[in-house]
Amino acid sequence: MTEVISHHRTRTADAALRQRARAVIPGGMYGHLSANALPAEYPQFYQRSEGAHVWDVDGNEYVDLMCSFGPVILGHKHPKVEKAVAAQLAEGDTQAGPAACMVEAAELLVDRVAHADWAMFAKNGTDATTTCLMVARAATSRNKVLAAAGAYHGSAPWCTLRLDGVTPEDRANMAYYTFNDIASVERAVQVADGDVAAIIVSPFKHDAGFDQEMVDPEFARRLRLLCDRIGAVLIMDEVRAGFRLNDGGSWEPIGVAPDLSAWSKAIGNGYPLAAVLGTESLSDAASRIFVTGSFWFQAVPMAASIATITAIRDEGAVPAMERIGTKLRAGIERQALEAGLTVFQTGPVQMPGLRFADDENFARARAFCASVVEHGVIVHPRHNWFVSAAHTDQDIDSVLDATWQGFQAVISQFGAS
Amino acid sequence: MTEVISHHRTRTADAALRQRARAVIPGGMYGHLSANALPAEYPQFYQRSEGAHVWDVDGNEYVDLMCSFGPVILGHKHPKVEKAVAAQLAEGDTQAGPAACMVEAAELLVDRVAHADWAMFAKNGTDATTTCLMVARAATSRNKVLAAAGAYHGSAPWCTLRLDGVTPEDRANMAYYTFNDIASVERAVQVADGDVAAIIVSPFKHDAGFDQEMVDPEFARRLRLLCDRIGAVLIMDEVRAGFRLNDGGSWEPIGVAPDLSAWSKAIGNGYPLAAVLGTESLSDAASRIFVTGSFWFQAVPMAASIATITAIRDEGAVPAMERIGTKLRAGIERQALEAGLTVFQTGPVQMPGLRFADDENFARARAFCASVVEHGVIVHPRHNWFVSAAHTDQDIDSVLDATWQGFQAVISQFGAS
Repeated sequence: MTEVISHHRTRTADAALRQRARAVIPGGMYGHLSANALPAEYPQFYQRSEGAHVWDVDGNEYVDLMCSFGPVILGHKHPKVEKAVAAQLAEGDTQAGPAACMVEAAELLVDRVAHADWAMFAKNGTDATTTCLMVARAATSRNKVLAAAGAYHGSAPWCTLRLDGVTPEDRANMAYYTFNDIASVERAVQVADGDVAAIIVSPFKHDAGFDQEMVDPEFARRLRLLCDRIGAVLIMDEVRAGFRLNDGGSWEPIGVAPDLSAWSKAIGNGYPLAAVLGTESLSDAASRIFVTGSFWFQAVPMAASIATITAIRDEGAVPAMERIGTKLRAGIERQALEAGLTVFQTGPVQMPGLRFADDENFARARAFCASVVEHGVIVHPRHNWFVSAAHTDQDIDSVLDATWQGFQAVISQFGAS
Repeated sequence: MTEVISHHRTRTADAALRQRARAVIPGGMYGHLSANALPAEYPQFYQRSEGAHVWDVDGNEYVDLMCSFGPVILGHKHPKVEKAVAAQLAEGDTQAGPAACMVEAAELLVDRVAHADWAMFAKNGTDATTTCLMVARAATSRNKVLAAAGAYHGSAPWCTLRLDGVTPEDRANMAYYTFNDIASVERAVQVADGDVAAIIVSPFKHDAGFDQEMVDPEFARRLRLLCDRIGAVLIMDEVRAGFRLNDGGSWEPIGVAPDLSAWSKAIGNGYPLAAVLGTESLSDAASRIFVTGSFWFQAVPMAASIATITAIRDEGAVPAMERIGTKLRAGIERQALEAGLTVFQTGPVQMPGLRFADDENFARARAFCASVVEHGVIVHPRHNWFVSAAHTDQDIDSVLDATWQGFQAVISQFGAS
């Protein structure tokens, strides 16, 4: 299949860096920010970020609808976060021990997240989910963990997306259920035969490449009851969604509390921090496991986190993202209708999911995204997008100008559906 | 056993923070920076850091001989590193993709470390060692990894210090040898029966709580030959020692090259970064595994790393640390002789190891450290210390004043040995 590539935007600096990168980085780039598998219109390297806007190394400006895949929730360089960062940086960051702000950050998280009695900090989302498994195993003296098939919980060998470099033993204690299907959980519990340490679940289904799916409250309640009945720990993976749906835990509105929750991404507005939150009954187990990292006690990300979590509530970030996300969803819905294209928009409006009907190998999504990027908006063809509290009505108008061009590109390549 | 605690230094702010921490952090603190198991004289919380000095939350000043357990190699807030950090922070940190400095940092590491043809970046030392295992397994299609018994390679379930929260399967593919004992490696290889993906080794033995031990060059050479013979990957864990022994790989002076090396701690002078370096033959395997993290592409730590690695060579950081470490070691040797105490100083002078003779449960080490801390120097009773390039002769004089007091405290509690 041929892709029509327009060249309104200069990409010479990006191309030169990609060439240098191929000489010293395996495959030229790796991980979730690799542009290798994305249309050629995508920049790989960025120069600058400010609010809801980013600039690539060629000076091209974009509205950023990926928010660095989630971390940026208040917009790049939010004044209050940057002020807290500058103040802490002037004192110290990776010091001989933690700073006072570690206690303050733990107190704030315990205050904001209803199920939480304590907090531990780390760097990666994967650190947080892995630590949750260790706490659950230490608490229950059991081994097995049930996860939703296809859910992403990090890139350690027990959970990474690809099996290259993973041994069978790395997955030996994992079993899988279907999200929103309690019978499938019951079956997995039966097979595990009394050895279930934990069930891990995301607030909603947000597997890349699939329609997103909100949780059925009845599924959530029965998952909680099932964990109570079998003495397993309910782990909520808030890494991707945390603080975008609610300024506390994502399931608080439906009244279901996990025992442990894993957080990262948005909790520091881009500064590197992860957290495990837990209930009092798991505090002893959490104090027995040994987990640590050279940078886990960095003060700057904790200071950033306090400013971020405070601003999320004080500035009404969640309702702001809901409002702007609703405007975006409605606009795309209108455009698709007008263009005669069938699209499916799924998941919460703050984390938009867009799929084209009959889109084998994401060909339409790629054509759409190539055009949208070319017209100045960073989106992704397979992964959900992220709205931040910094997106303005004007930004969404710009986004909708670009998505309209994107729909035209799809029609010109594939016809109306 | 009673410990005599002097109260020259105020600890009220620290005590208040510890009390608040106990309410919201399991055990009050966790990981390698927990002061829970240390003498009461140790501060838990720090206010400020500058050069070779740190201040606790009560305003007490210390010469920092732990360097945040390694990350701080040029001293806290090295001007060139801070300048690079400020410049990059003004542009962007966790952006829509990496910045140009990611390529520059990879090029610099490949230039400085002889065995390296490519680099990948992550956050934790554990990310780097775990990624090395995955690359080796992807390359060899084998499962087992041989590590030195007692060596610390991170806090993931496959390698953490304690077994709480760890399943038998997490360790099923690990086998152990004795550092500097090639026959023990040969035996482990035989038991693994053709399934050895990798052998992981530290540049020298630096297990906390034990005498440090420099590598026997003959052991290093035979380890390399053994890996070549069986087609296994030789992984060097440079996380703790990297750039303190040499401004390239730690085994370059003895002429033995690993296939993969794991780096973190000192490579960003305290800014959170880890790296995996590898040879060309492993580039394809490295590009096939899926590892990533929300903050792995942060630009600020990469900019910090470029400034740090450049300054290490330009400012002669390694010879500076050797000189000052030698002065410290000689001073402690003289004091111990004069005090009539038998001590063992082991490992490279840049990473001082000190043990008292007949020191059951580290009682003498604890008494010594309590006094040394009380007299204004941060050291550790069980873990190696770290010298940085910022330590001056005057700092070492202050340290030696404190260690002399420390030896007197040991004599007053335990008598001369």
